[in-house]
Amino acid sequence: MVTARVVDLRSDTVTKPNEAMRCAMAAAEVDDDVLGFDPTAQKLEMEVAKIMHKEAALFVPSGTMANLISVMVHCEVRGSEVVLGDNSHIHVYENGGISTIGGVHAKTVPNNINGTMDIEKIVKAIRGVDGEMYYPTTRLICLENTHGNCGGRCLSVEYTDKVGEVAKKYGIKLHIDGARIFNASVALGVPVHRLVQAADSVSVCLSKGLGAPVGSVIVGSTEFITKAKRLRKTLGGGMRQVGVLCAAAYVALRDNVHKLSDDHRRAKILAEGLQQMEYFSVDLNSVESNMVYFDIKENSKISADRLCEVLEERCVIAMPSSSTRVRLVLHYQISDSDVQFALTCIKEGVDQILTGGKNGKIVQNLINVVPVSTV
Amino acid sequence: MVTARVVDLRSDTVTKPNEAMRCAMAAAEVDDDVLGFDPTAQKLEMEVAKIMHKEAALFVPSGTMANLISVMVHCEVRGSEVVLGDNSHIHVYENGGISTIGGVHAKTVPNNINGTMDIEKIVKAIRGVDGEMYYPTTRLICLENTHGNCGGRCLSVEYTDKVGEVAKKYGIKLHIDGARIFNASVALGVPVHRLVQAADSVSVCLSKGLGAPVGSVIVGSTEFITKAKRLRKTLGGGMRQVGVLCAAAYVALRDNVHKLSDDHRRAKILAEGLQQMEYFSVDLNSVESNMVYFDIKENSKISADRLCEVLEERCVIAMPSSSTRVRLVLHYQISDSDVQFALTCIKEGVDQILTGGKNGKIVQNLINVVPVSTV
Amino acid sequence: MVTARVVDLRSDTVTKPNEAMRCAMAAAEVDDDVLGFDPTAQKLEMEVAKIMHKEAALFVPSGTMANLISVMVHCEVRGSEVVLGDNSHIHVYENGGISTIGGVHAKTVPNNINGTMDIEKIVKAIRGVDGEMYYPTTRLICLENTHGNCGGRCLSVEYTDKVGEVAKKYGIKLHIDGARIFNASVALGVPVHRLVQAADSVSVCLSKGLGAPVGSVIVGSTEFITKAKRLRKTLGGGMRQVGVLCAAAYVALRDNVHKLSDDHRRAKILAEGLQQMEYFSVDLNSVESNMVYFDIKENSKISADRLCEVLEERCVIAMPSSSTRVRLVLHYQISDSDVQFALTCIKEGVDQILTGGKNGKIVQNLINVVPVSTV
Amino acid sequence: MVTARVVDLRSDTVTKPNEAMRCAMAAAEVDDDVLGFDPTAQKLEMEVAKIMHKEAALFVPSGTMANLISVMVHCEVRGSEVVLGDNSHIHVYENGGISTIGGVHAKTVPNNINGTMDIEKIVKAIRGVDGEMYYPTTRLICLENTHGNCGGRCLSVEYTDKVGEVAKKYGIKLHIDGARIFNASVALGVPVHRLVQAADSVSVCLSKGLGAPVGSVIVGSTEFITKAKRLRKTLGGGMRQVGVLCAAAYVALRDNVHKLSDDHRRAKILAEGLQQMEYFSVDLNSVESNMVYFDIKENSKISADRLCEVLEERCVIAMPSSSTRVRLVLHYQISDSDVQFALTCIKEGVDQILTGGKNGKIVQNLINVVPVSTV
Repeated sequence: MVTARVVDLRSDTVTKPNEAMRCAMAAAEVDDDVLGFDPTAQKLEMEVAKIMHKEAALFVPSGTMANLISVMVHCEVRGSEVVLGDNSHIHVYENGGISTIGGVHAKTVPNNINGTMDIEKIVKAIRGVDGEMYYPTTRLICLENTHGNCGGRCLSVEYTDKVGEVAKKYGIKLHIDGARIFNASVALGVPVHRLVQAADSVSVCLSKGLGAPVGSVIVGSTEFITKAKRLRKTLGGGMRQVGVLCAAAYVALRDNVHKLSDDHRRAKILAEGLQQMEYFSVDLNSVESNMVYFDIKENSKISADRLCEVLEERCVIAMPSSSTRVRLVLHYQISDSDVQFALTCIKEGVDQILTGGKNGKIVQNLINVVPVSTV
Repeated sequence: MVTARVVDLRSDTVTKPNEAMRCAMAAAEVDDDVLGFDPTAQKLEMEVAKIMHKEAALFVPSGTMANLISVMVHCEVRGSEVVLGDNSHIHVYENGGISTIGGVHAKTVPNNINGTMDIEKIVKAIRGVDGEMYYPTTRLICLENTHGNCGGRCLSVEYTDKVGEVAKKYGIKLHIDGARIFNASVALGVPVHRLVQAADSVSVCLSKGLGAPVGSVIVGSTEFITKAKRLRKTLGGGMRQVGVLCAAAYVALRDNVHKLSDDHRRAKILAEGLQQMEYFSVDLNSVESNMVYFDIKENSKISADRLCEVLEERCVIAMPSSSTRVRLVLHYQISDSDVQFALTCIKEGVDQILTGGKNGKIVQNLINVVPVSTV
Repeated sequence: MVTARVVDLRSDTVTKPNEAMRCAMAAAEVDDDVLGFDPTAQKLEMEVAKIMHKEAALFVPSGTMANLISVMVHCEVRGSEVVLGDNSHIHVYENGGISTIGGVHAKTVPNNINGTMDIEKIVKAIRGVDGEMYYPTTRLICLENTHGNCGGRCLSVEYTDKVGEVAKKYGIKLHIDGARIFNASVALGVPVHRLVQAADSVSVCLSKGLGAPVGSVIVGSTEFITKAKRLRKTLGGGMRQVGVLCAAAYVALRDNVHKLSDDHRRAKILAEGLQQMEYFSVDLNSVESNMVYFDIKENSKISADRLCEVLEERCVIAMPSSSTRVRLVLHYQISDSDVQFALTCIKEGVDQILTGGKNGKIVQNLINVVPVSTV
Repeated sequence: MVTARVVDLRSDTVTKPNEAMRCAMAAAEVDDDVLGFDPTAQKLEMEVAKIMHKEAALFVPSGTMANLISVMVHCEVRGSEVVLGDNSHIHVYENGGISTIGGVHAKTVPNNINGTMDIEKIVKAIRGVDGEMYYPTTRLICLENTHGNCGGRCLSVEYTDKVGEVAKKYGIKLHIDGARIFNASVALGVPVHRLVQAADSVSVCLSKGLGAPVGSVIVGSTEFITKAKRLRKTLGGGMRQVGVLCAAAYVALRDNVHKLSDDHRRAKILAEGLQQMEYFSVDLNSVESNMVYFDIKENSKISADRLCEVLEERCVIAMPSSSTRVRLVLHYQISDSDVQFALTCIKEGVDQILTGGKNGKIVQNLINVVPVSTV
């Protein structure tokens, strides 16, 4: 196993299970969860439900399935429409599954740069009393907190509550894609259950910032979760001795929530470092959680693709989010010194590009190397 | 039968079949079209295909089915996405059927006030080579010409061709919702086939401005229409001795296209009349075909609902399109004098509202009365 | 127009509108039915609802749409299953639309030769309380009366009521595909409303034995029809001045029900004539309504395809239903002498085949000829 | 942890990961598999593909998802139909997902008691050249080997090849639900790849007889697996550091295939023991793999439910499959002495029931106890 220093900033999904998680998996008490008897799955589900102040919870293999099931349960009657952000993960990155699998019509509202949608635009998008001839029936509003495509910014309790009031007023449901809801909680200094108080359902990812190897949890009412469980089976998300995954996820939930504030602190350091570099611009105000988006200034002869290439040669891995923009994501396996190392590499990489330095070959296999910082 | 003068400006869908159409229905040579033998259906389909310079055509019961079938045939492979205007008829008024029936994901692009979508926004919305993990595959772009929600404005040949080039470049299809494509052709002075040259399919409505009692026709390649025919059967749109409808539609197509220019001329007269009234504003430039949208100025104490009420008392029927906006639609059963009558009634109605004149009861049954102008 | 005697026995869908229907179409009072104002459509719908003793009714373009809408409304919640006959029209001939369009799972039960399904098999097929993990939820049972694939045989009141009790007991709905329910009523001598008393919805075809050019009507509760109307719009079955079709259908309903007993009488004459021919076998008991299926005996050197070919040369049109079976369908445009003519042609045709008579070319264009019997 | 002897015969899905699997999970080298980099997932997928002599493979969370994805990829074009056994797992136990999620129409053929479907019935069920107006297009045949609902009986190479020839002849695909394909291979003494040679895709379960905690693998052509991977993401079956599950599954595949013959031997012992008891009948010929179905004779005053209750009091867990039938399933965590213990308990239980022995309370919590045999 190579021991090169590798700093993987592509996403907080790339963390690897630590020793505690691996031990928990190895020792997990398990049973057939499809038959309804896995004690470790039940323990995790009860814990997440409790933390979120919801009646019930369900472990699923991915955030995509968590969102898909949630939308499909709220929109179980044919002819439903969901109001959601045009830049939301559900609309942009989930293969259009709510329509292509769920037959739900998407009515998008523009996401502001802070991840919100204007309340009046949400209200205007809501349609259809049942029986109306021309429109599908709006049955659901979806929010995303933190909002990945909007820089990892946080939706406030006030905003979320307001959307909840709109939903209630029109007799429709509110789902929160809370893939990174703990980041929002920590960044805002608000208990996580308060952030989702207005929501009828929340999908919570445990394999992003919290570092579990696999899995998300859906929370909601008992009735909602009963339907979700059945749909999970239909989609093929029911797993047998799934306690092995839940045991690791339980450790993630227990040990890693408090580490998120360090990720946020490091994100700010990274953003400030980039801000000081001549060729980049960063909106420091937008760095609220564990994500840093930076833009390459015009006329700088640097492309995002090329920058990521020269970084990879230096064992810093990042992904362009457009031709002039790069996204960096912090997580608990990125240390303070990893951040400094990344900043140094970025500086060197820019120099190499601008001075026409040798076009180093991309070190493809690095991406499978264990990061030094995990040791 | 009452002979009161009724001017129905709600839509060009309200026309009633004239004598020629009724005679044609009564005399139509027909056979079982589901078995493939109705000669009058075949004659109409061949005629529309010929006019549109496409290989084949198919008669269907409505514009909604024409669009639904077209989208579903182009997107017959699961996991498809269609790029279309956020204000388009397909997205707004067709019950979300492309998703709820067809399982197709909607990716909207903002409609400009003239009905176009910016080319660069269309390009940006196109996603997905097959095999990509996060995105549905864009398989279709939809345009609407004339664009109903955008004032009946026309898309030019140049614009349509440009969108066609984009489609071709990315290997996707172009469908035109041509519910009022003949209005566009007449308004622009361009042969209708030239307007749809870039399109892989077009839905053409015969029961709007052209005045047929029922029906739309889809045109496209022979392969496309073969698939469309099968899907029509699945949806339940296959009809037996449908020649009785096609005979009337044939008369509409033969006799009424040239009358559309009169509708457009009358729309301008109506718009100018409204423009001169103190309480309304109309964008005269936007009146390109047979629709007039006018706005009630702020602080005028007139609501669109109330205005339509007092108009109905005077046998002029109109529909509000928002609380301060009314849409009026011309068609061949609205004469010059009907237009003058409508303008007079609007003036009187406004006076009544502002002077607090008696709240006349709405004459509900008028809507079933035969318009004088048809006589 | 050719005046050759043509006897078209393919189906009762091939009838052509008679003078009374054509006059009714030409004179129909109509309005925009999508806006909800067509008086002739309303009159027809009210009439059918009244005849069937149901609260409400809806005109649709075809029997396929009538069945599709009915199944989809009863099964509007995702995860539904319908119990239906393995030989039923819905399962066999409607493109699988309930699954491919409606997302409803089909659970078939074997049809007995008389069109029934064994009650105990229906009960066994019913599955799923909501919440069950492995099964879809049975929400609907479908019957077909008369049963087309089972020789046009009739389901009795007793049988239908029993199935209705099963449905009620398990809290599920009963739909009757009544494409030919008037044939059953006439054949059994039972008022049609009594036959469908146990049903929550019925699709009634007016363009089969009754002879309307186009259309079926769905009947059910007001709530059911409200949902059906919305779904009709989504599927594209909403039609504008549809009164022109409804006027003809009204005539069919008024004038042609009592003629069905003649069709049944003629079917028996036809069956008996065939029974006397050496090469065929017919189950006379199975001829209960307007259909005659006859089998070609083994080792007779006659194939159904070839027989239909030689019949077509003689202007008698029929369709094979398998390689050794032919279906003949009577309708009001087939007279007693048409039946005798058909029997004569069949005899001659058999002789020609067996004696190796000249392989006459198929007279393809005959199928567009007006049957003598309509004159 | 209780150490009572518990013999869980409900299913081969109830096995718990052994030490080797737990160690493998704890030590697994992992990466983000959604990004495509998990080395352990890749290793497992390559191994299964190699064993099955197919080009590619994909790990999924469950057998249900494996089948759902397979059917949906083969039937990716709307309007598809699949021919499958009326008693098959896909049709009976998977929530009707192929229709309710996939929009695929099910055309069932009766399963014979040995799990086959008659070849001529399969041929008869195949429908529809594309373009046909009334039928969905048959695009897939599904077999199941071993066949769970048919006593775990095996389909032979000869039978499978014949079905493959039919598929090829009609230009359609063949999928094998191989949840227990290794059982079939071992029972028949045929290499597993030979058993699936005619198949275009196979779903292979690793968490049944092989004992992995979670997971199935789909195999097929590279093109098929590429599409399957995308659909897995859409359904939400893409998992991050999934190598932890794949590591355990790899151990299951490596260590446990050869143990299946012991399961089969023990199944026969169990069946013979039951056969000798006066109140039961077992078809010994039907016991070909790891399943034993036995019937309670009529008039014996024993119900399947009651029998399972008294067994559970004795720490033997079984599930009724009907009111007079019980299914017992062997797996590698059931030893020879467990089988003897189970037989003894069954005898005692029957005595208790017949002598009206005390109605012992069901020991509910036993189902979470670790079976002695795993120690």
